[in-house]
Amino acid sequence: MSADEKRWVVGVDLGGTNIVVGVLPIEGGELLALRTQKTEAARGAKFVVDRIVQMVEESIAEVAGANGASKEHFAGIGIGSPGPLNRETGTIINTPNLGWRNFPLRDLIANAVGLPAALDNDANCATYGEWWLGAGRDVDSLIGFTLGTGIGGGIVLNGRIFHGASDSAGEIGHTTIDSTGRKCKCGNYGCLEAYASGPAIALRAVEGLETGAESVLPDLVNGRLEDITAATVYEGAVLGDGYSNEVMKETAKFLGIGIANIINIFNPEMIVVAGGVTRAGDHLFVPLRAEVRRRAFRSAEEVCQIVPATLLGTAGVIGAIAMFKQDVLGSV
Amino acid sequence: MSADEKRWVVGVDLGGTNIVVGVLPIEGGELLALRTQKTEAARGAKFVVDRIVQMVEESIAEVAGANGASKEHFAGIGIGSPGPLNRETGTIINTPNLGWRNFPLRDLIANAVGLPAALDNDANCATYGEWWLGAGRDVDSLIGFTLGTGIGGGIVLNGRIFHGASDSAGEIGHTTIDSTGRKCKCGNYGCLEAYASGPAIALRAVEGLETGAESVLPDLVNGRLEDITAATVYEGAVLGDGYSNEVMKETAKFLGIGIANIINIFNPEMIVVAGGVTRAGDHLFVPLRAEVRRRAFRSAEEVCQIVPATLLGTAGVIGAIAMFKQDVLGSV
Repeated sequence: MSADEKRWVVGVDLGGTNIVVGVLPIEGGELLALRTQKTEAARGAKFVVDRIVQMVEESIAEVAGANGASKEHFAGIGIGSPGPLNRETGTIINTPNLGWRNFPLRDLIANAVGLPAALDNDANCATYGEWWLGAGRDVDSLIGFTLGTGIGGGIVLNGRIFHGASDSAGEIGHTTIDSTGRKCKCGNYGCLEAYASGPAIALRAVEGLETGAESVLPDLVNGRLEDITAATVYEGAVLGDGYSNEVMKETAKFLGIGIANIINIFNPEMIVVAGGVTRAGDHLFVPLRAEVRRRAFRSAEEVCQIVPATLLGTAGVIGAIAMFKQDVLGSV
Repeated sequence: MSADEKRWVVGVDLGGTNIVVGVLPIEGGELLALRTQKTEAARGAKFVVDRIVQMVEESIAEVAGANGASKEHFAGIGIGSPGPLNRETGTIINTPNLGWRNFPLRDLIANAVGLPAALDNDANCATYGEWWLGAGRDVDSLIGFTLGTGIGGGIVLNGRIFHGASDSAGEIGHTTIDSTGRKCKCGNYGCLEAYASGPAIALRAVEGLETGAESVLPDLVNGRLEDITAATVYEGAVLGDGYSNEVMKETAKFLGIGIANIINIFNPEMIVVAGGVTRAGDHLFVPLRAEVRRRAFRSAEEVCQIVPATLLGTAGVIGAIAMFKQDVLGSV
């Protein structure tokens, strides 16, 4: 069978909590045979790899069966994983969440399935997915912020993921916005992530409550402040709670600082913000855009759209497929 | 005459204080017919343009005369200028230092000389010069910091200047490192430039003296603290003055924060630091590299050289020539 007859690519989005697998026609379109399972990293690397391989095989069988096709019609597998990693060797260097070190994830999957594979980090894949089929499908260059337990970043320039000299580019969450500020998990002080990640939003909210702020938040967690998460704060904001709104405005200000820095550096066409925090909608984006206008150069700010991601939950899989196409097939 | 027979390109580096003009063989090499004159912007735009044109004509005549050649052997003129500017139209949008607005600098020079010309901003050109023939001649990608009255930035990725969506990329001096910090001339708070530009270094030194710091600095300016410049502080540091060294260490720390941010974002092969501040040598670079190691991801930091620029005073002209080659001839 010639390369021209390959009709699908498989995508894997490996996270600390979930594994998501899906299939796309090689030219894009609707995501097929999508499935999600828990990662259960505590059960060991072999367990996780076996689970991924099984999910990939199931997705392939599902799509092949529905189309009278076989595995030969699949060009390969794109894999997005937490990093740092080495794209050339397909090896995970070190993932605190999974507990892996120098782990040859790409080839284990490729050999087990019998298809070529490509590996890249999860934040790059999520951003690339938004560029290919999501919020950024009409622009050439964009920068992605993925807000979750941490803040991941991805850089797409002229339709390609920008990786830097050692696959470490895009650590936007660990840019300093307040050099004498909060301590970050990375050991540094004042990282954007230390202010605007999910846990940081919750922590700032709890700190205020502990010093006497009036709010609906304690009621939302039956008085157990330790149960407050970023989602609780969005809920409070949507319910019209003044304090929750204040915390969201602070969050928007910090994010706006980080985004203004990126706009002054890259002068991008678009910034895509992904993650649960975008559920706060205008409570987040209105003050965020105002802070960006205060801080970024007008010539750069006025050409940059700041938008929420649109591929909720699937950007990573879609981007992993796009990444495979770019890396192995030569174009997206 | 065919394009193949063109042998030289002219470079113009227009600054608020000086105009520098020189010529390079099209394949690079030694800078020829170099000349510098005061800009004297107060005498008006026509005066400045006439002066540039005259300098260009003189440089061409000098090189042509020495080689039995004529203007036909010159491919064109690369012009570096303060921005913001529009590269496509060759127009200066607005330069506070020169007092110009929507000024068609490129075509005025091109038409007067009778050669094609290309326009880009001065910090981009200075960085591109270092990439082509200076500190970065062996790398593909680097980021340049030019420290002077302000802090300019330039981004070279895979051998090309990165311009962004509206020619505004690279404003690294105006990234926030301390969101509640010093007010910057740009109106923002906590920009890198507000801490580590020449005037900011002098201001921080004077503030400390005014609150009682012991130092040799007042003696170096006959007691007139208002005469202290960044150069006075380097001089003090080189003389072994403890306070001057402290100010340099603070400067190195602030620069290190800004550079660590850039390393976490771009994972570049090289950072090139240009400007008078590099004369402080190890007084600057040793604490600067230490701060970067504290703040940047190891995987990115350990592959990044942080070096002083090598084309002192000529990076702008050389980079303007490289930029002309890239823009008009299609490669450097």
